Parts: sequence; structure tokens; C-alpha cells
Amino acid sequence: MKETIPYKIFLAEDEMPTHYYNVRADMERKPAPLLNPATMQPMTAEELEHVFCRDLVEQELDDTTRYIPIPQEIRDFYRMYRPAPLVRAYELERRLGTPAHIYYKFEGNNTSGSHKLNSAIAQAYYAKKQGLKGVTTETGAGQWGTALSMACGYLGLDCRVYMVKVSYEQKPFRREVMRTYGASVTPSPSTTTEVGRRILAEHPNTTGSLGCAISEAVEDAVSREGYRYVLGSVLNQVLLHQSIIGLETKTAMDRYGIKPDIIIGCAGGGSNLGGLIAPFVGAQLRGEAKYRFIAVEPASCPSLTRGSYVYDFADTGKVCPLAKMYTLGSGFIPSANHAGGLRYHGMSPIVSELYDQGIIEARSVEQTSVFEAAEYFARIEGILPAPESSHAIRVAIDEAIRCRETGEAKNILFGLTGTGYFDLVAYEKFNNGEMTDFIPTDEDIAASLAKLPKQ
Amino acid sequence: MKETIPYKIFLAEDEMPTHYYNVRADMERKPAPLLNPATMQPMTAEELEHVFCRDLVEQELDDTTRYIPIPQEIRDFYRMYRPAPLVRAYELERRLGTPAHIYYKFEGNNTSGSHKLNSAIAQAYYAKKQGLKGVTTETGAGQWGTALSMACGYLGLDCRVYMVKVSYEQKPFRREVMRTYGASVTPSPSTTTEVGRRILAEHPNTTGSLGCAISEAVEDAVSREGYRYVLGSVLNQVLLHQSIIGLETKTAMDRYGIKPDIIIGCAGGGSNLGGLIAPFVGAQLRGEAKYRFIAVEPASCPSLTRGSYVYDFADTGKVCPLAKMYTLGSGFIPSANHAGGLRYHGMSPIVSELYDQGIIEARSVEQTSVFEAAEYFARIEGILPAPESSHAIRVAIDEAIRCRETGEAKNILFGLTGTGYFDLVAYEKFNNGEMTDFIPTDEDIAASLAKLPKQ
Repeated sequence: MKETIPYKIFLAEDEMPTHYYNVRADMERKPAPLLNPATMQPMTAEELEHVFCRDLVEQELDDTTRYIPIPQEIRDFYRMYRPAPLVRAYELERRLGTPAHIYYKFEGNNTSGSHKLNSAIAQAYYAKKQGLKGVTTETGAGQWGTALSMACGYLGLDCRVYMVKVSYEQKPFRREVMRTYGASVTPSPSTTTEVGRRILAEHPNTTGSLGCAISEAVEDAVSREGYRYVLGSVLNQVLLHQSIIGLETKTAMDRYGIKPDIIIGCAGGGSNLGGLIAPFVGAQLRGEAKYRFIAVEPASCPSLTRGSYVYDFADTGKVCPLAKMYTLGSGFIPSANHAGGLRYHGMSPIVSELYDQGIIEARSVEQTSVFEAAEYFARIEGILPAPESSHAIRVAIDEAIRCRETGEAKNILFGLTGTGYFDLVAYEKFNNGEMTDFIPTDEDIAASLAKLPKQ
Repeated sequence: MKETIPYKIFLAEDEMPTHYYNVRADMERKPAPLLNPATMQPMTAEELEHVFCRDLVEQELDDTTRYIPIPQEIRDFYRMYRPAPLVRAYELERRLGTPAHIYYKFEGNNTSGSHKLNSAIAQAYYAKKQGLKGVTTETGAGQWGTALSMACGYLGLDCRVYMVKVSYEQKPFRREVMRTYGASVTPSPSTTTEVGRRILAEHPNTTGSLGCAISEAVEDAVSREGYRYVLGSVLNQVLLHQSIIGLETKTAMDRYGIKPDIIIGCAGGGSNLGGLIAPFVGAQLRGEAKYRFIAVEPASCPSLTRGSYVYDFADTGKVCPLAKMYTLGSGFIPSANHAGGLRYHGMSPIVSELYDQGIIEARSVEQTSVFEAAEYFARIEGILPAPESSHAIRVAIDEAIRCRETGEAKNILFGLTGTGYFDLVAYEKFNNGEMTDFIPTDEDIAASLAKLPKQ
């Protein structure tokens, strides 16, 4: 019997979203505002514009406009690598012997290898529109830095990336992709910023950290004429741009009359999860439908499942505003043996607020089981997934197996955020049987949370 | 004004090819048969079946059946990563200021990163159908080995890859992808085969060669119960499978009434070029249309533009049958500084015969100009292309610039065979300004051709 739902659903160009969806407009209790660490008062637009572009500050603060137009230039860029396919995992279902229908939205079909490009082009576009010369940012493993380099290369904008030194040295290929797109990549800590020099003086042998790279990127942006700083996750504006993931998905599912029962996304800073679920959360908040939303995080960095919902610094260097979020404390550093990404100490304020309201569930998974799911998925569905994305695969498989046990033919949707082509050191560790799990103790987390700023 | 041709054309499932197209059926003068090196007589099916699967031998020898059905199992696998998009390069056209319309068929949206998967799944399927336990092959840079690993991982077939030792050591990530898909990867020359031990005894410090890896893979296959050897290019069967590229492309273009004036493909062994042009060549041979076909090869390994059309060994180790092809001599080794792939000494018999009949043109390009085109393309169209594919980009851009000069609005189609995510050592060399060109002298080529077998 011929199935009527194709393996892959691609939207036609005239079905592609023309507006971002701003889930805050439908939330009765809004995410808490960013605070100025000096005054502990909400950051004003004027204060934010020292660091971020004008239009992006407006998007950051706007929690009432439901639909925000996507400028034509951004839509043209999206058309080069979007629509992302919504894939029906027929073969995975068959091998699992599950009555569930499994769908995934695949965001890895672009050179940055992930969904990060959706926000990178938007942020670069607004910087260009404002007449800026360039932008600065930090990158850890390199997905975000690659995405931003691509966007800036396309628009002819200067792109200055501070890359955590250990990644710069161990992931020369990521660095080289960024250089090919015309970005300058500086290992962090560096001697080009004051904060970098200070850190190097104190810790001459440090291999860097994301917090340090953020501090350098911010200093670089505010001290350089015509530059602003951009960030790849956590912020409201980023989740707004990433709503294109959920909007495309919902349009594709609606076309075939499919209603997802469970929607699963991996969650580090929350940009992918927030973008995927946004229009579904909106429909639920408006009373139009009911879904189960599951955020999946690593057991080694469990901000939602074991953190506190309080104000904390967005960065380890404490130069950024405070955000109210589920956090393990801005000083929390996941075990070095954690290979699976999603290492951020906190969670986006929007996702945190939805979780606090009980709209989203959260689950934490251990990395060996994540890589088992990744390898299983790769062999059956062909795509080598990013370790981050594989957190969602793990839970999607678990839920499909549960359906096999209960006999329920649920529709399971998950976000496949990216590919693992630059994560093969981690795969090698797994293939060699050398990967282990690490779960922080209650004492570890309590000690980190004890250092939170006074609320 | 809204363009009616979308950025990307995806075929619907019911438009996807159900049959491979066998261009030999439409050729009046057929490609020459493979010869047994011992007897210099055409290889019989029985002789070939010692090395290759039964169904594949049949496809190899069949030069009269025009359309050969694609088994449902292979079509199911194709649906997981196909249709490959036909992309209209609007932005590239705009930046070049050309009246030409540029289209490319992008084959890189799968984990193997290239078109090689199209034939890998077919060859693995027929091996499985024959009840074999596994297959052996060689790989250089690793695209073919990765593709075959994916196909075997999906079908549960054992996959034994001999990887040129220098690549095994310098491209550990490619090796790791293959291992993740369950393949065993052995650096060649190895001590597991007689030919490997012999070579190691003679040259203890050798870093291997493709020819040596082929010899080991063939020995492994014929000496192991239930195994056969498979090859990723050159053979008629491979070009048959790759006809899916051209069939999808032609269907997509026909849907919008687009007739390509120029069709461009890079050519190493000829599998991508042969597959892309097959249905167009067929239409031309049947008098239905007229096209310009351009094969692009590296100036450092110019088999079509500077080789001879004679019988030669398919492998450096001279264990394989002889094929009549444009060749530089099976002992020809391109300069070590050549980073752009397409290093094979000969050219597929089908492509060679079409070239000899004047149906295909050939052009050779130098690698620095290839990487310039690659980087330009990457920044404008987003995709980081494989060095191999970038040979076609170079000539497509050159032809578009020519159209700008003449004012002709030609339709230019090229094959974008894959992505460069595992070729960043070469990009780094280019980004650092350390890449140079190398063109063999007439004496180099004459010396190599002098060692050809007596015809």
C-alpha cells in the first residue's frame, strides 16, 4: 500500500514563512527582562544599543507583537538553503517495530551544519542595514562562528570571531571554514583585548573558555568604531529568528493533516528548541491544540532538571546583563569528558519561563546512550547527526519504543539540528569504547549555585 | 518582478526515476569491451563474476537495454537523501552581472558528501541480493569508502575498506565516519594481504597508493568466501547508476521548459559527468536536441586533453582487466602538490568514447583558479564545494562571464558533486597563499605512455 505522506516534505516557495513568530506575544506571564548588573534595573533600549544593533534590540524587547516581518533580503538568503525538509523516518519506525510515526525537521543541510545560520543571517543583515562595518562574536565548537562567517561573507561584512583556544587548536577545520568565508579567527584568550591580556597574565597556560571568549568579543565590539556584538543562542531575538524552524514544520504538517503528539528538541541555550516549538506553544496557549513538549539536555549539564530559576550572568566573565533563567550558575563548567555539546550553564529566558509554567517537560540523558542513538540513527536514516541533535534522537527513540509497548500510534516530532561532520573526535572516542558518562553531584551544583548574585 | 523558476527545484516522489538510463543503448559506436590481460580477449561474464556480483556483471556488459529498472529497495534508500535539488544560482548570476541563467545539480546533501552514494547503494544491494556476506573496496580521500560504508551499514553487509595509508593517517575523520557506519578500515599497504606484504617488503616506508589499495581489495575479495569487490567510478555499471543524476535534472528542467545550452561536469573517473549528461546525450544521439557538453579535468592530471585513447590497466597494480580509455598510463601519478582530487590516470570507457566521437569537449584547469572559484562560490551560494566539484564551478563561471561579454542569455548547467567538509587541509593551503600549480611536461606524459601495454 502506498503511503500518502512522502519521505520528505519540502515547502514550496510561496508556502515559506514571511514573518517570524514571537511566542512572547501569546504568553500571559512573560519572560523576565534582562537586568543591568550595575543598577539591577531592567536594561533600557539605549543601554542595549551599545552592544547590539538597533533593530535587534527592538526585537529583544518586543514581547507583544505576534508576527514580525522577515525582510526580503533575509528571505532571499533563506531560499538558498531552506526550506529544511520535514522527514518521515519510515525506516527507523520499521526497524524499531513501533506503531508511532516519527518525523524530524532536518536543519543540517547547509555548510554551517546547523540551524544557527537562521539567526546568523538575520543578525548580520540588521548590522549591515544599520551601516555597521562588522560584528564580533565568540564560538566554542564552531557551529555558530561558521554560521556567522557565512552570513557576513555573503553580505560583505567584517566578522571577528574569538574561538576558545582549545577548540581553535583541536578543530582546525572549523577554523578553516570560517577563514574561507572571510572571517578573522582569534584564539581566546588573546593579547588583542585587555581582558584577554589580563587572563593570560593570571593563567598563562589556560586553554580558554566560552565565558572568556564572550568577554573578549564584547570588549572588541564596544571599543571598535562601527562594530556590534552578536550572540547565537539564549536571547529572545535568537529564538524569534529560529521560529522559522517551527513555522515551516507546522505548515508542512498542516498540509498533510498531521498533528504531532510529542515534540522533542535538544536544549543547550535553547535556540533550536525554542524555535521548533514556538508556533505549537502559541497554538496551545491560544487553546487551539494540546501537545507534549520535551526539552532534552545532557546529564552532565542539567540546567533545567537540576538548576535554579533565578537571575544569573549570561557569561562566565560577568560582563553581560543578568538574565532570569534556569541556571547551574555562571561559574559551572561541565566535565571535560563531556563530548556532546550543549555545555551552556543556563537556558534561554523564554524556554525557562515556559518550563517554569509547566508547558515544557525536561529530561536529561547520558552521553553514551546519546552516541548509541546517534550511531543507530546514522546507519538507518543515513545522516550522521551532531552530538547535540542526538540528545533529541535518544528521547524520540525512547518514546517510539514506549509506543511499541503501549500500542499507541503517536506522532513524534523531533528537531534534528545539525550534522556531526566536525565532531568525529567524539565519535572516535565512542567507537573505541572510551567514552564515559559524568553526572555532577548535588554538592557540585549546590556549590556553583551558592556563587549566584544576590537576588 | 517575481521569477517563476524557484531557487531550488525538488522533484515530487512520483516524479523520481524508476529506471536507470543506459546511454550505451543509444550509442552507435559502443565503448570498447574490457579485456582479459592474460588472453587480451573480451572478459566474459563468467570471468567477471569471480570479482563482481552477478547482476552488476550483467549491467556492465549490457549495451543494448535502454532503461533498466531500479529495484524498489534501492528507490526506498534514494528517497532518504534524494531528490537532489536542482538549484538556480540567482545570486551568483547577479554578482557576475551575467545574462546567463546558471543551474547546478547538488549531490552533496548526504553524509558521504557526494554523488558516490548513488552507486554504492546499488552495488551493495545486488551483493546482498546475491546472498553475499560482504564487499571489499579501496578508497583514497574517502568519499567512495564513506558512501559504501553507509550503504553496507544500512543493509547489514560487511564492508572492508583499504584506505591509502597517507589518507588513513591524514584524514582520520573520514576513517571515523566509515567506522561509525560499521566498516572495517585498513591502511594500505597492509600485512593482511599477500600483495600488501610484498609491497611492504620492497618499500617499507611507502605511504601507499590507490593502485596498491585496489590490488589489496581485489585479493581480499577473491580469497574470501562470500565476498566481491566493488568500484566507485570508471565502470559502465557505475555510470548507469549515476544516470539518476541526469534523469532527475532533466525531469526538473523539462517541468519548467528549460533547455540547458551548456552542461558542465568535473571528470576524474567520469562517474559524475557520465551520469549527469547521460539522458541529454541520449536525446542528442536520438536527434531530439543539441547541447554542448564540457568535461573539466585538472591540468595536473589531464587524461582527456593530453592522454591517449588506448587499452590500459584500470589499476596501478595491473591486477584488473584492461579498459580502452583516454589514459596517461596506469603508472602516471599526479604531482603530490595537487590538492583538488580527480587524480585517476584514465577515464571511463563511456566518457572516453563520447569524447573520441566529438560529442563531449574537454578542458583542463589549474588548481589555484579552481580554489578561487570555490571560495567565490562558497561566499555567494553558501555551499562549501568539494575541490573536485569546483572544477565544474570554474568553467561554469568562465562561461557565464563569456555570456556577459557576448550578451547571450544561455542556460548553463553544472554538476555540484559534493561538499568540501573533509578537504579543509587543501582550503587551508589556499587560504594561506601556499597553493601552487603543477602541469606535467610533455616528456612526463610521453614517458608514462611509453609504458602502456602493447596494443
